[in-house]
Amino acid sequence: MATEVEHKFLVISEAWRAAVERSVRMSQGYLVSDEVRSVRVRLEGDEARLNIKSSGIGTSRAEYEYPIPLADAEELLATLCGTKVEKTRYYVPFADHLWEIDVFEGDNAGLVVAEVELAYEGEPFARPDWAGEEVSLDVRYYNTQLALHPYRSW
Amino acid sequence: MATEVEHKFLVISEAWRAAVERSVRMSQGYLVSDEVRSVRVRLEGDEARLNIKSSGIGTSRAEYEYPIPLADAEELLATLCGTKVEKTRYYVPFADHLWEIDVFEGDNAGLVVAEVELAYEGEPFARPDWAGEEVSLDVRYYNTQLALHPYRSW
Repeated sequence: MATEVEHKFLVISEAWRAAVERSVRMSQGYLVSDEVRSVRVRLEGDEARLNIKSSGIGTSRAEYEYPIPLADAEELLATLCGTKVEKTRYYVPFADHLWEIDVFEGDNAGLVVAEVELAYEGEPFARPDWAGEEVSLDVRYYNTQLALHPYRSW
Repeated sequence: MATEVEHKFLVISEAWRAAVERSVRMSQGYLVSDEVRSVRVRLEGDEARLNIKSSGIGTSRAEYEYPIPLADAEELLATLCGTKVEKTRYYVPFADHLWEIDVFEGDNAGLVVAEVELAYEGEPFARPDWAGEEVSLDVRYYNTQLALHPYRSW
Protein backbone atom coordinates (compact mmCIF):
# COMPACT_ATOMS: atom_id res chain seq x y z
CA MET A 1 0.00 0.00 0.00
CA ALA A 2 1.00 3.55 -0.70
CA THR A 3 -0.58 6.56 0.97
CA GLU A 4 -1.60 9.20 -1.51
CA VAL A 5 -1.33 12.82 -0.35
CA GLU A 6 -2.78 15.19 -2.95
CA HIS A 7 -3.94 18.78 -3.15
CA LYS A 8 -6.29 19.85 -5.92
CA PHE A 9 -6.92 23.34 -7.34
CA LEU A 10 -9.08 24.90 -10.01
CA VAL A 11 -6.98 26.22 -12.91
CA ILE A 12 -7.60 29.90 -13.61
CA SER A 13 -5.35 30.66 -16.58
CA GLU A 14 -3.63 29.04 -19.56
CA ALA A 15 -0.14 30.10 -18.42
CA TRP A 16 0.76 26.48 -17.50
CA ARG A 17 0.63 25.40 -21.15
CA ALA A 18 4.06 26.91 -21.90
CA ALA A 19 5.65 24.60 -19.30
CA VAL A 20 4.10 21.25 -20.27
CA GLU A 21 6.67 18.45 -20.14
CA ARG A 22 4.45 15.68 -21.57
CA SER A 23 0.80 14.70 -21.76
CA VAL A 24 -1.29 11.54 -21.96
CA ARG A 25 -4.93 10.75 -22.76
CA MET A 26 -6.82 8.92 -20.05
CA SER A 27 -10.10 7.08 -20.10
CA GLN A 28 -11.32 5.67 -16.82
CA GLY A 29 -14.32 4.06 -15.19
CA TYR A 30 -15.24 2.56 -11.84
CA LEU A 31 -16.17 -0.99 -10.81
CA VAL A 32 -17.30 0.54 -7.52
CA SER A 33 -17.17 3.90 -5.81
CA ASP A 34 -18.91 4.15 -2.47
CA GLU A 35 -18.24 5.53 1.01
CA VAL A 36 -15.57 2.90 1.77
CA ARG A 37 -13.57 2.31 -1.42
CA SER A 38 -13.21 2.85 -5.17
CA VAL A 39 -11.92 0.43 -7.80
CA ARG A 40 -10.86 2.23 -10.97
CA VAL A 41 -9.94 0.89 -14.42
CA ARG A 42 -7.78 3.36 -16.35
CA LEU A 43 -6.46 3.39 -19.91
CA GLU A 44 -3.46 5.71 -20.01
CA GLY A 45 -1.87 5.99 -23.43
CA ASP A 46 -1.05 2.36 -24.32
CA GLU A 47 -0.98 1.19 -20.70
CA ALA A 48 -3.76 0.10 -18.37
CA ARG A 49 -4.02 -0.05 -14.61
CA LEU A 50 -6.39 -1.19 -11.92
CA ASN A 51 -6.44 1.11 -8.89
CA ILE A 52 -7.99 0.55 -5.46
CA LYS A 53 -8.38 3.50 -3.12
CA SER A 54 -9.96 4.12 0.26
CA SER A 55 -12.72 6.73 0.20
CA GLY A 56 -13.27 9.66 2.48
CA ILE A 57 -12.91 13.37 2.13
CA GLY A 58 -9.43 14.75 2.59
CA THR A 59 -5.95 14.85 1.15
CA SER A 60 -4.59 11.42 2.29
CA ARG A 61 -5.84 8.05 1.06
CA ALA A 62 -4.60 4.44 0.98
CA GLU A 63 -3.93 3.39 -2.60
CA TYR A 64 -3.06 0.16 -4.42
CA GLU A 65 -2.26 -0.01 -8.12
CA TYR A 66 -1.67 -2.93 -10.50
CA PRO A 67 -0.91 -3.02 -14.24
CA ILE A 68 -3.40 -5.09 -16.25
CA PRO A 69 -3.50 -6.05 -19.96
CA LEU A 70 -4.78 -3.27 -22.24
CA ALA A 71 -7.40 -5.58 -23.79
CA ASP A 72 -8.79 -6.45 -20.34
CA ALA A 73 -9.11 -2.75 -19.46
CA GLU A 74 -10.94 -2.02 -22.73
CA GLU A 75 -13.38 -4.86 -22.06
CA LEU A 76 -13.91 -3.87 -18.43
CA LEU A 77 -14.59 -0.24 -19.42
CA ALA A 78 -17.05 -1.38 -22.09
CA THR A 79 -18.93 -3.91 -19.94
CA LEU A 80 -18.54 -3.81 -16.15
CA CYS A 81 -17.65 -0.18 -15.38
CA GLY A 82 -20.10 2.68 -15.13
CA THR A 83 -19.91 5.94 -17.08
CA LYS A 84 -16.42 6.80 -18.27
CA VAL A 85 -14.43 9.93 -17.45
CA GLU A 86 -12.23 11.13 -20.32
CA LYS A 87 -9.43 13.64 -19.99
CA THR A 88 -5.95 14.60 -21.08
CA ARG A 89 -3.39 14.89 -18.31
CA TYR A 90 -0.55 17.38 -18.71
CA TYR A 91 2.59 17.13 -16.57
CA VAL A 92 3.96 20.53 -15.58
CA PRO A 93 7.04 20.95 -13.37
CA PHE A 94 6.78 23.90 -10.98
CA ALA A 95 9.34 24.66 -8.27
CA ASP A 96 10.10 21.29 -6.58
CA HIS A 97 7.00 19.39 -7.71
CA LEU A 98 5.53 17.86 -10.84
CA TRP A 99 1.96 19.12 -11.20
CA GLU A 100 -0.74 17.22 -13.06
CA ILE A 101 -3.27 19.25 -14.97
CA ASP A 102 -6.40 17.41 -16.04
CA VAL A 103 -8.33 18.89 -18.97
CA PHE A 104 -11.63 17.04 -19.05
CA GLU A 105 -13.66 16.11 -22.13
CA GLY A 106 -17.16 14.90 -22.93
CA ASP A 107 -19.74 15.68 -20.25
CA ASN A 108 -16.99 17.16 -18.09
CA ALA A 109 -15.66 19.50 -20.81
CA GLY A 110 -14.83 22.95 -19.47
CA LEU A 111 -13.38 21.62 -16.24
CA VAL A 112 -9.62 21.99 -15.70
CA VAL A 113 -8.04 21.01 -12.38
CA ALA A 114 -4.44 20.86 -11.17
CA GLU A 115 -3.11 18.37 -8.63
CA VAL A 116 0.14 18.22 -6.76
CA GLU A 117 1.17 15.00 -5.02
CA LEU A 118 3.18 15.41 -1.83
CA ALA A 119 5.62 12.99 -0.22
CA TYR A 120 3.91 13.44 3.16
CA GLU A 121 1.04 15.37 4.72
CA GLY A 122 2.26 18.91 5.36
CA GLU A 123 5.17 18.89 2.91
CA PRO A 124 5.68 22.51 1.78
CA PHE A 125 4.98 23.29 -1.88
CA ALA A 126 4.98 26.43 -4.03
CA ARG A 127 1.63 27.34 -5.54
CA PRO A 128 1.74 28.60 -9.13
CA ASP A 129 -0.21 31.69 -10.29
CA TRP A 130 -2.44 29.54 -12.51
CA ALA A 131 -3.68 27.53 -9.50
CA GLY A 132 -6.83 29.16 -8.11
CA GLU A 133 -9.22 27.99 -5.42
CA GLU A 134 -8.25 24.77 -3.61
CA VAL A 135 -10.96 22.11 -4.00
CA SER A 136 -9.29 19.13 -2.28
CA LEU A 137 -12.19 18.80 0.15
CA ASP A 138 -14.97 19.33 -2.41
CA VAL A 139 -16.29 15.87 -3.34
CA ARG A 140 -17.86 17.17 -6.57
CA TYR A 141 -14.38 17.29 -8.11
CA TYR A 142 -13.56 13.66 -7.28
CA ASN A 143 -13.30 11.68 -10.52
CA THR A 144 -15.68 9.12 -8.99
CA GLN A 145 -18.27 11.91 -8.67
CA LEU A 146 -17.52 13.35 -12.13
CA ALA A 147 -18.49 9.92 -13.51
CA LEU A 148 -21.89 10.11 -11.77
CA HIS A 149 -22.57 13.87 -11.85
CA PRO A 150 -20.55 15.38 -14.71
CA TYR A 151 -19.52 19.04 -14.69
CA ARG A 152 -22.03 19.97 -17.41
CA SER A 153 -24.92 18.95 -15.14
CA TRP A 154 -23.87 21.22 -12.23
CA MET B 1 -10.94 -12.29 -20.26
CA ALA B 2 -11.83 -15.88 -19.62
CA THR B 3 -15.38 -17.20 -19.55
CA GLU B 4 -16.02 -19.32 -16.51
CA VAL B 5 -18.45 -22.23 -16.95
CA GLU B 6 -19.16 -23.89 -13.61
CA HIS B 7 -21.69 -26.29 -12.15
CA LYS B 8 -22.19 -26.44 -8.40
CA PHE B 9 -23.64 -29.26 -6.27
CA LEU B 10 -24.34 -29.91 -2.62
CA VAL B 11 -22.08 -32.63 -1.22
CA ILE B 12 -24.04 -35.49 0.36
CA SER B 13 -21.33 -37.86 1.62
CA GLU B 14 -17.71 -37.98 2.75
CA ALA B 15 -16.69 -40.47 0.06
CA TRP B 16 -14.72 -37.79 -1.85
CA ARG B 17 -12.18 -37.50 0.97
CA ALA B 18 -10.39 -40.72 -0.08
CA ALA B 19 -9.61 -39.16 -3.49
CA VAL B 20 -8.27 -35.75 -2.43
CA GLU B 21 -5.24 -34.75 -4.48
CA ARG B 22 -4.38 -31.55 -2.59
CA SER B 23 -6.05 -28.85 -0.53
CA VAL B 24 -5.59 -25.15 0.23
CA ARG B 25 -7.03 -22.73 2.78
CA MET B 26 -8.79 -19.70 1.32
CA SER B 27 -9.86 -16.44 2.87
CA GLN B 28 -11.72 -14.02 0.66
CA GLY B 29 -13.68 -10.80 0.75
CA TYR B 30 -15.34 -8.44 -1.73
CA LEU B 31 -14.63 -4.83 -2.67
CA VAL B 32 -18.01 -4.89 -4.42
CA SER B 33 -20.66 -7.43 -5.26
CA ASP B 34 -23.78 -6.11 -6.93
CA GLU B 35 -26.04 -6.96 -9.85
CA VAL B 36 -23.37 -6.08 -12.45
CA ARG B 37 -20.00 -7.24 -11.11
CA SER B 38 -17.97 -8.56 -8.19
CA VAL B 39 -14.38 -7.71 -7.23
CA ARG B 40 -12.89 -10.35 -4.95
CA VAL B 41 -9.66 -10.35 -2.91
CA ARG B 42 -8.51 -13.89 -2.13
CA LEU B 43 -5.69 -15.27 0.02
CA GLU B 44 -4.98 -18.81 -1.18
CA GLY B 45 -2.18 -20.53 0.72
CA ASP B 46 0.76 -18.12 0.33
CA GLU B 47 -0.60 -16.52 -2.84
CA ALA B 48 -3.09 -13.71 -3.35
CA ARG B 49 -5.29 -12.75 -6.26
CA LEU B 50 -7.70 -10.07 -7.32
CA ASN B 51 -10.65 -11.39 -9.31
CA ILE B 52 -13.25 -9.48 -11.30
CA LYS B 53 -16.39 -11.28 -12.44
CA SER B 54 -19.61 -10.34 -14.16
CA SER B 55 -22.71 -11.04 -12.08
CA GLY B 56 -25.90 -12.75 -13.08
CA ILE B 57 -27.45 -16.08 -12.30
CA GLY B 58 -26.25 -18.98 -14.38
CA THR B 59 -23.30 -21.17 -15.19
CA SER B 60 -21.26 -18.85 -17.50
CA ARG B 61 -19.55 -15.64 -16.40
CA ALA B 62 -16.81 -13.34 -17.70
CA GLU B 63 -13.81 -13.46 -15.38
CA TYR B 64 -10.51 -11.58 -14.99
CA GLU B 65 -7.85 -12.54 -12.47
CA TYR B 66 -4.58 -10.87 -11.41
CA PRO B 67 -1.95 -11.87 -8.84
CA ILE B 68 -1.29 -9.22 -6.19
CA PRO B 69 1.24 -9.04 -3.32
CA LEU B 70 0.24 -11.08 -0.25
CA ALA B 71 0.66 -8.07 2.05
CA ASP B 72 -1.70 -5.97 -0.12
CA ALA B 73 -4.35 -8.71 0.03
CA GLU B 74 -4.08 -8.94 3.82
CA GLU B 75 -4.49 -5.15 4.14
CA LEU B 76 -7.40 -5.03 1.68
CA LEU B 77 -9.20 -7.86 3.52
CA ALA B 78 -8.66 -6.09 6.85
CA THR B 79 -9.70 -2.62 5.72
CA LEU B 80 -11.64 -2.21 2.45
CA CYS B 81 -13.44 -5.54 1.98
CA GLY B 82 -16.67 -6.57 3.69
CA THR B 83 -17.17 -9.73 5.75
CA LYS B 84 -14.74 -12.53 4.90
CA VAL B 85 -15.60 -16.02 3.69
CA GLU B 86 -13.24 -18.71 4.99
CA LYS B 87 -12.99 -22.21 3.60
CA THR B 88 -10.67 -25.07 2.71
CA ARG B 89 -10.76 -26.15 -0.92
CA TYR B 90 -10.05 -29.80 -1.75
CA TYR B 91 -9.13 -30.84 -5.30
CA VAL B 92 -10.61 -34.20 -6.27
CA PRO B 93 -10.12 -35.77 -9.71
CA PHE B 94 -13.19 -37.64 -10.95
CA ALA B 95 -13.50 -39.10 -14.44
CA ASP B 96 -12.18 -36.42 -16.85
CA HIS B 97 -12.51 -33.41 -14.52
CA LEU B 98 -10.87 -31.96 -11.44
CA TRP B 99 -13.62 -31.17 -8.92
CA GLU B 100 -13.26 -28.51 -6.25
CA ILE B 101 -14.88 -29.21 -2.90
CA ASP B 102 -15.27 -26.22 -0.59
CA VAL B 103 -15.64 -26.97 3.12
CA PHE B 104 -16.71 -23.69 4.70
CA GLU B 105 -15.77 -22.43 8.15
CA GLY B 106 -16.89 -19.71 10.57
CA ASP B 107 -20.47 -18.51 10.01
CA ASN B 108 -20.70 -20.80 6.96
CA ALA B 109 -19.56 -23.94 8.83
CA GLY B 110 -21.63 -26.98 7.91
CA LEU B 111 -21.82 -26.05 4.23
CA VAL B 112 -19.93 -28.25 1.75
CA VAL B 113 -20.28 -27.66 -1.99
CA ALA B 114 -18.60 -29.23 -5.02
CA GLU B 115 -17.86 -27.39 -8.26
CA VAL B 116 -16.78 -28.64 -11.63
CA GLU B 117 -15.39 -26.20 -14.19
CA LEU B 118 -16.13 -27.02 -17.82
CA ALA B 119 -14.20 -26.03 -20.93
CA TYR B 120 -17.41 -24.85 -22.61
CA GLU B 121 -21.13 -24.64 -21.91
CA GLY B 122 -22.61 -28.08 -22.47
CA GLU B 123 -19.37 -30.08 -22.14
CA PRO B 124 -20.35 -33.55 -20.87
CA PHE B 125 -19.12 -34.50 -17.39
CA ALA B 126 -19.58 -37.49 -15.09
CA ARG B 127 -21.36 -36.76 -11.81
CA PRO B 128 -19.94 -38.52 -8.76
CA ASP B 129 -22.16 -40.26 -6.18
CA TRP B 130 -21.20 -37.74 -3.51
CA ALA B 131 -22.60 -34.83 -5.59
CA GLY B 132 -26.25 -34.27 -4.66
CA GLU B 133 -28.66 -31.52 -5.68
CA GLU B 134 -27.35 -29.05 -8.27
CA VAL B 135 -27.42 -25.48 -6.89
CA SER B 136 -25.76 -23.57 -9.78
CA LEU B 137 -28.80 -21.32 -10.14
CA ASP B 138 -29.40 -20.76 -6.41
CA VAL B 139 -27.87 -17.38 -5.54
CA ARG B 140 -27.74 -18.22 -1.82
CA TYR B 141 -24.74 -20.43 -2.53
CA TYR B 142 -22.75 -17.72 -4.31
CA ASN B 143 -19.72 -16.80 -2.21
CA THR B 144 -20.73 -13.14 -2.55
CA GLN B 145 -24.03 -14.03 -0.86
CA LEU B 146 -22.38 -16.24 1.77
CA ALA B 147 -20.39 -13.14 2.81
CA LEU B 148 -23.63 -11.20 3.36
CA HIS B 149 -26.01 -13.95 4.48
CA PRO B 150 -23.93 -16.80 5.93
CA TYR B 151 -25.21 -20.39 5.99
CA ARG B 152 -25.80 -20.32 9.77
CA SER B 153 -28.35 -17.53 9.38
CA TRP B 154 -30.53 -19.43 6.87
